[in-house]
Amino acid sequence: MSSIRPLFVVAGVGNGSGTGAASARLFAKSGYRVALISRGPDHLNKLASEINQNGGEAAAFPVSDYTPDSIRSAFSSIRSKFPASTSPLRVAVFNAGYGVWKPFLQITDEEVRESLDTNVIAAFAFSKEVLLEFTKNDVEDASEGGKGGSRKKGTLIFTGATAAIRGNTTTSAFAAGKFGIRALSQSLAKEFGKQNIHVAHSIIDGGIITDRSKGFRNDPNWENNADVRLDPDSIAKSYLYLVGQDSSAWAWEIDLRPAHEKW
Amino acid sequence: MSSIRPLFVVAGVGNGSGTGAASARLFAKSGYRVALISRGPDHLNKLASEINQNGGEAAAFPVSDYTPDSIRSAFSSIRSKFPASTSPLRVAVFNAGYGVWKPFLQITDEEVRESLDTNVIAAFAFSKEVLLEFTKNDVEDASEGGKGGSRKKGTLIFTGATAAIRGNTTTSAFAAGKFGIRALSQSLAKEFGKQNIHVAHSIIDGGIITDRSKGFRNDPNWENNADVRLDPDSIAKSYLYLVGQDSSAWAWEIDLRPAHEKW
Amino acid sequence: MSSIRPLFVVAGVGNGSGTGAASARLFAKSGYRVALISRGPDHLNKLASEINQNGGEAAAFPVSDYTPDSIRSAFSSIRSKFPASTSPLRVAVFNAGYGVWKPFLQITDEEVRESLDTNVIAAFAFSKEVLLEFTKNDVEDASEGGKGGSRKKGTLIFTGATAAIRGNTTTSAFAAGKFGIRALSQSLAKEFGKQNIHVAHSIIDGGIITDRSKGFRNDPNWENNADVRLDPDSIAKSYLYLVGQDSSAWAWEIDLRPAHEKW
Amino acid sequence: MSSIRPLFVVAGVGNGSGTGAASARLFAKSGYRVALISRGPDHLNKLASEINQNGGEAAAFPVSDYTPDSIRSAFSSIRSKFPASTSPLRVAVFNAGYGVWKPFLQITDEEVRESLDTNVIAAFAFSKEVLLEFTKNDVEDASEGGKGGSRKKGTLIFTGATAAIRGNTTTSAFAAGKFGIRALSQSLAKEFGKQNIHVAHSIIDGGIITDRSKGFRNDPNWENNADVRLDPDSIAKSYLYLVGQDSSAWAWEIDLRPAHEKW
Repeated sequence: MSSIRPLFVVAGVGNGSGTGAASARLFAKSGYRVALISRGPDHLNKLASEINQNGGEAAAFPVSDYTPDSIRSAFSSIRSKFPASTSPLRVAVFNAGYGVWKPFLQITDEEVRESLDTNVIAAFAFSKEVLLEFTKNDVEDASEGGKGGSRKKGTLIFTGATAAIRGNTTTSAFAAGKFGIRALSQSLAKEFGKQNIHVAHSIIDGGIITDRSKGFRNDPNWENNADVRLDPDSIAKSYLYLVGQDSSAWAWEIDLRPAHEKW
Repeated sequence: MSSIRPLFVVAGVGNGSGTGAASARLFAKSGYRVALISRGPDHLNKLASEINQNGGEAAAFPVSDYTPDSIRSAFSSIRSKFPASTSPLRVAVFNAGYGVWKPFLQITDEEVRESLDTNVIAAFAFSKEVLLEFTKNDVEDASEGGKGGSRKKGTLIFTGATAAIRGNTTTSAFAAGKFGIRALSQSLAKEFGKQNIHVAHSIIDGGIITDRSKGFRNDPNWENNADVRLDPDSIAKSYLYLVGQDSSAWAWEIDLRPAHEKW
Repeated sequence: MSSIRPLFVVAGVGNGSGTGAASARLFAKSGYRVALISRGPDHLNKLASEINQNGGEAAAFPVSDYTPDSIRSAFSSIRSKFPASTSPLRVAVFNAGYGVWKPFLQITDEEVRESLDTNVIAAFAFSKEVLLEFTKNDVEDASEGGKGGSRKKGTLIFTGATAAIRGNTTTSAFAAGKFGIRALSQSLAKEFGKQNIHVAHSIIDGGIITDRSKGFRNDPNWENNADVRLDPDSIAKSYLYLVGQDSSAWAWEIDLRPAHEKW
Repeated sequence: MSSIRPLFVVAGVGNGSGTGAASARLFAKSGYRVALISRGPDHLNKLASEINQNGGEAAAFPVSDYTPDSIRSAFSSIRSKFPASTSPLRVAVFNAGYGVWKPFLQITDEEVRESLDTNVIAAFAFSKEVLLEFTKNDVEDASEGGKGGSRKKGTLIFTGATAAIRGNTTTSAFAAGKFGIRALSQSLAKEFGKQNIHVAHSIIDGGIITDRSKGFRNDPNWENNADVRLDPDSIAKSYLYLVGQDSSAWAWEIDLRPAHEKW
């Protein structure tokens, strides 16, 4: 672990079957050290072990909640485990979140707060830790003779949803959180682009295949048809692409949906 | 006060020189009883007195903060003062808010939270109290023979800003709050339209002339040129218009800016 | 006809049962002289007669098509009938259009061209005639002591549709036309606002009740329920409202849909 | 040329220094046969020669204009040169266009028409030829065991611009054209996704470095700083990425701008 390798941090890996975990696996394979922040230490440790067994280098940093203090504490632990000198932070994915889908009058104060805390407040705190590191990085210059190539201090990606661009009858609390993350990501993209820090936002506009969605859909056709549902691995590939974009042509936002999606 | 007159509630009236206060004055003149919710009891009482002296019927309901409990308590006080039987709630304007404009790394946890609490959490709590009343109202039918005319249980209007549709370099926390309100308003418009409850969102896309903006601009030309800055009275007129819209053609969103604004 | 009265021009009145005709009737009642441009001279003359019989002052200016030459010729005829000295042009509504809803591969070259000609090319030509007049007008100042009030040379309104903001499976040609009109209206709003010329765009987001829609729906419940379909008279009211807006708070865009619309 | 290789078609390659030409070069290197459609036969032949000399396989199909007839004729010539049996069309890029930036009242009828013809009418005709071929293709299946992977009949990409999403003071005619293309691309994405045909739209939100922009800017700092201007090669890479996207996570739209762009 003494060699220099870039660090990838993700917040939010659920039970290891979704976008956060797929991203961790893909960036591990692509040469990144991986720091996993999430609630649910069991799933987290399992994912870290899996990545390590497959030749990657991952560590779990469980949090009991997504308060700014917990997030700061996780980053502090990350830095004990992976010092900046040998593991410069280069990619961060904010994938945490909390969804509540209910008619408005049934949503409780606590659910509203939880949606804003876990989506927006946590995204602000996560972004701050990430940007404090990115701003200290050198520009990693992969361009050749002024042509193309990535020239970056780092990349920060937020996982959004349909609810990031459109409110709907049962999504008031979820949409408020996801709209808030989108506002943050656009503000950061504009503020930090000048420092060669790339901030991007993905609109995941469809159902993702995860253990949970498999469970409540219970529909083998849906599971087996790669054209009708989002695969976390495919989303992860788009994140890896965003990280590698030339600094002459960065995307802030990309919308992703299955080929057959009705939208 | 025993006669039946519709009730107008507004949250957020600042020092009495902005959009919330202008709306209160206009709806008072238009025959509504007016309930004023705001922090700052002095300004609030002064505005209530002014409206009452001008022949209106207003009362102040100061809150120490915009927590759901405080908002519920204010509505409870409103109902003691203005019983639903003689003052059915027909129009509500959410105009509260808190703006912080700072480079991202200088924004504190507290400022992020304050922006989300005062903008989004408060908007949810306010909307809940309002919608609990609206859903109990009869449809007030001003149509004639099936032609045009307003057919409503009530109208709920949110005051938005440029930052509701666009993040920018120093607006991350403010935009997260305003995006969140916009998400809420769109969700509610879709959910409650079927019940003849009209929810609308205004995008105030420019500088408003208030005591505060006069103070920090200190520019008589700007103050005196009605084409270059938003007048709270003009915004209030647009709210009165939205309230009167025929149910066959409701606007969810309207963008307002001065004639000469560069946008 | 020697007295000075403002002139209202509308392009596109169909068979007299839709938005263009309803606008003409309402502005006639509101004191405007009315110039009607449309294909179909019979319907056009019938509408002019109806308005004149009801105490208005209208004239028909039929065009065989919406080419720039035809539109210029119509404006020339309008000026012979209603000289600018006694009938200054103050309000113009572009309501022409041509819709084709078909699977893409079935749309012919001619249908694509017709959609762009009638929607976009015609809108450019109409706007040019209107703006050449507006820019010569004095600002009509209805403000009082620098407070509120309309201060305008004129108002130009475009009738849009859902297809102005969203393409869909069978709307490629129609949406291309309506997107184009929206682009024009936003460009003009930004360019001419500084000259106190107000340009606005309405998004008609739902089905309008007209003779034609009554015919193909053949659904009395739909016709008689003012909450489920757009009424041309209600749209016309919103146009009259836009014309009267204070110059301190102009809307560029307003979305209109029935109370019960699913969107 | 008897071996089977996929065909790439691009419309609009200017003088060979912009997005269309860069895309042609990149797809040629990536194993595609390349068909170049453009006005200006000299530049076109020069680009074809260059690609062929570098080991690619390209042919020029000059058009005198972008009318539907000319485009159909070009596709017919393409099919004589590259029969579908050995060169199945898999990727098409519509990069033609015509920009006019002028105050509205100075824009002529001819300029409006040229903008709509070259941008929108041409895009419809090009899309039709492309989709007639794509719909006949087999799905090229690069997925493995139902996991990820591209499963496509073909990819159609449109080059957009800032003016595709925002009108401005001097862009009325250009924006009308670019909005129209965006409407078309979204409509097609929704209609043909179900057939595993991927339609995408890029928003090129900044200045591109081309021979022409170098000429009128005459600013070596701008030319040499990869962070401040779009490089056609970088845009081309994003098109290659879109072509390779898994069918479980397709992007319809991606916005591209330089790292340091103010937006």
